[in-house]
Amino acid sequence: MGDVNGIGPEIVVKILMNPELLALCQPVIVGSADALEKYALGQDVLARVVRASESDLPAVAADKVLLVEPAGAQAPVIVPGKVAADAGRFAFECVKVAVRFALAGKVDGIVTCPVSKTAVNLGGYHYAGHTEFLAELSGCRDYRMMLVAGQLCAVHVTTHLALSAAIKLVTSDRVAGTIKLAYRAMRQLGIERPRVAVAGLNPHAGEETLFGTEERDAIIPGIELARADGIGATGPLPPDTVFMKMARGEFDVVVAMYHDQGHIPLKLAAFNRTVNVTIGLPFVRTSVGHGTAFDIAGKGIADPTSLAEAIKVAAVMTAHRNRV
Amino acid sequence: MGDVNGIGPEIVVKILMNPELLALCQPVIVGSADALEKYALGQDVLARVVRASESDLPAVAADKVLLVEPAGAQAPVIVPGKVAADAGRFAFECVKVAVRFALAGKVDGIVTCPVSKTAVNLGGYHYAGHTEFLAELSGCRDYRMMLVAGQLCAVHVTTHLALSAAIKLVTSDRVAGTIKLAYRAMRQLGIERPRVAVAGLNPHAGEETLFGTEERDAIIPGIELARADGIGATGPLPPDTVFMKMARGEFDVVVAMYHDQGHIPLKLAAFNRTVNVTIGLPFVRTSVGHGTAFDIAGKGIADPTSLAEAIKVAAVMTAHRNRV
Repeated sequence: MGDVNGIGPEIVVKILMNPELLALCQPVIVGSADALEKYALGQDVLARVVRASESDLPAVAADKVLLVEPAGAQAPVIVPGKVAADAGRFAFECVKVAVRFALAGKVDGIVTCPVSKTAVNLGGYHYAGHTEFLAELSGCRDYRMMLVAGQLCAVHVTTHLALSAAIKLVTSDRVAGTIKLAYRAMRQLGIERPRVAVAGLNPHAGEETLFGTEERDAIIPGIELARADGIGATGPLPPDTVFMKMARGEFDVVVAMYHDQGHIPLKLAAFNRTVNVTIGLPFVRTSVGHGTAFDIAGKGIADPTSLAEAIKVAAVMTAHRNRV
Repeated sequence: MGDVNGIGPEIVVKILMNPELLALCQPVIVGSADALEKYALGQDVLARVVRASESDLPAVAADKVLLVEPAGAQAPVIVPGKVAADAGRFAFECVKVAVRFALAGKVDGIVTCPVSKTAVNLGGYHYAGHTEFLAELSGCRDYRMMLVAGQLCAVHVTTHLALSAAIKLVTSDRVAGTIKLAYRAMRQLGIERPRVAVAGLNPHAGEETLFGTEERDAIIPGIELARADGIGATGPLPPDTVFMKMARGEFDVVVAMYHDQGHIPLKLAAFNRTVNVTIGLPFVRTSVGHGTAFDIAGKGIADPTSLAEAIKVAAVMTAHRNRV
């Protein structure tokens, strides 16, 4: 459900009324019953909800939805728009339950609504965000961020750090690891023979080292390492045309060297439909592409499109999750 | 005309048959008469062409087109697709004539077709490209590259250098200078009160220095310097949403910190329509957004869309060129 004071509860209620999504999956909501009730007012959503607990996740009819509150957690006071310690703490306690479900095979994947980094830290969890917490809970060190926007996908070699620091992290090993994770993610998205493009780091992909040497020293060797492991990829390609080529259907995914290289084109192409996927974890995890939107929380105007897309992507990936 | 062995002559012939463009301007083609004849075969373009010389640029009827060959230049042999010294040398001799025309006020602006950097260098001109040559010929040191794609515009603080070197060139002075040139360019594009957005350098525009300090140390001071000179700008904004905001109509132009930050979104949004503009020169200069395309030269399949857009942008900017 994410932070109960953000738009998470509202978009959860909205997607529970979407028959297309209910046909794709049986949702298990880990979150606040109070929040759900608050946003479900006047709608027949609540008749669908079956309360459950972490120790007892019963099989229910296909038109029902399970709701689990973390055992022993202090229910947060719901104040739309407020950055609060209790809401931040509760959000991460919900994540812990979801991860236990996923690791135990009780759910097929996790879809997350937005949390506030500030609230989570006020609540005693010192993480940069969901992703780092999920990775730690599942003992995973080698994960990557994938952004999905309709038919466009980008997997990032580096993400949330200064651009100057990101450049230094572009190594042949990281590039090779990213290519392999990107290839596997595309397989899980249902593509038999993924066509992986690798973007250069520098303008014109360095133009034969005229504008930088990272292509020669890290990216080309990374592509060769992946190829030696049986995973083919094309590149390094000029960053300013590779996304257009993907949009035309020439590639299924672009391996981007840094956060904005992948985020700028995908958000421009399909802002409200972007889905964040963490690949490399031992379970499927997708997330909405937006934040808590505290400024519009409680107003009834939140757009559930990204959450709906995140659920669709998770449903496809879980169906193919044993693919390598 | 650009390199006679590239697609330049073909797209020039194609636009000479476009009445919409002829209504916007009276073209003066500086290039090879042989190349024009070769591509005009079987079309009534040649009946429109009036030969002229650098010393005698006569007034002609609105449906006519002037053609000037550089005096004393060796006419290149035309071999479509060939990278050749004579074609490279001739292309830059044409540019010199065009610049003399522009500086003398005989033409209102310059639109360039693509040259081959390799051919130009073989021909004895040692420049990275058109832009550096134009700047030197006009004694200009403070110019910037603007990319236009339909309603989207980006002006770049840095362009053709390694990303790690570009980061170091992001200084408050360069940012301020770019904001001012971007504002003026928008005025010349006919916008009364340009709304200028400034992108951050780092993910999330650094998120309060968590992901880099260039926003605090260079970009914010640069915005303040421009503001002190009476030019307002909004930013630094997160790079991965600022282009979407421009696409929604919130801004007229984005000041981009490096080549791909501006090029990736604009080329994705409108690849075959992008126009390159050099701003800060003492005359209007636009260029096609593509290269010589030697691989398709002489085949009759070259797309003149970008040249047509480049002429339209030049026509608008020359109409407002005295605006500051």
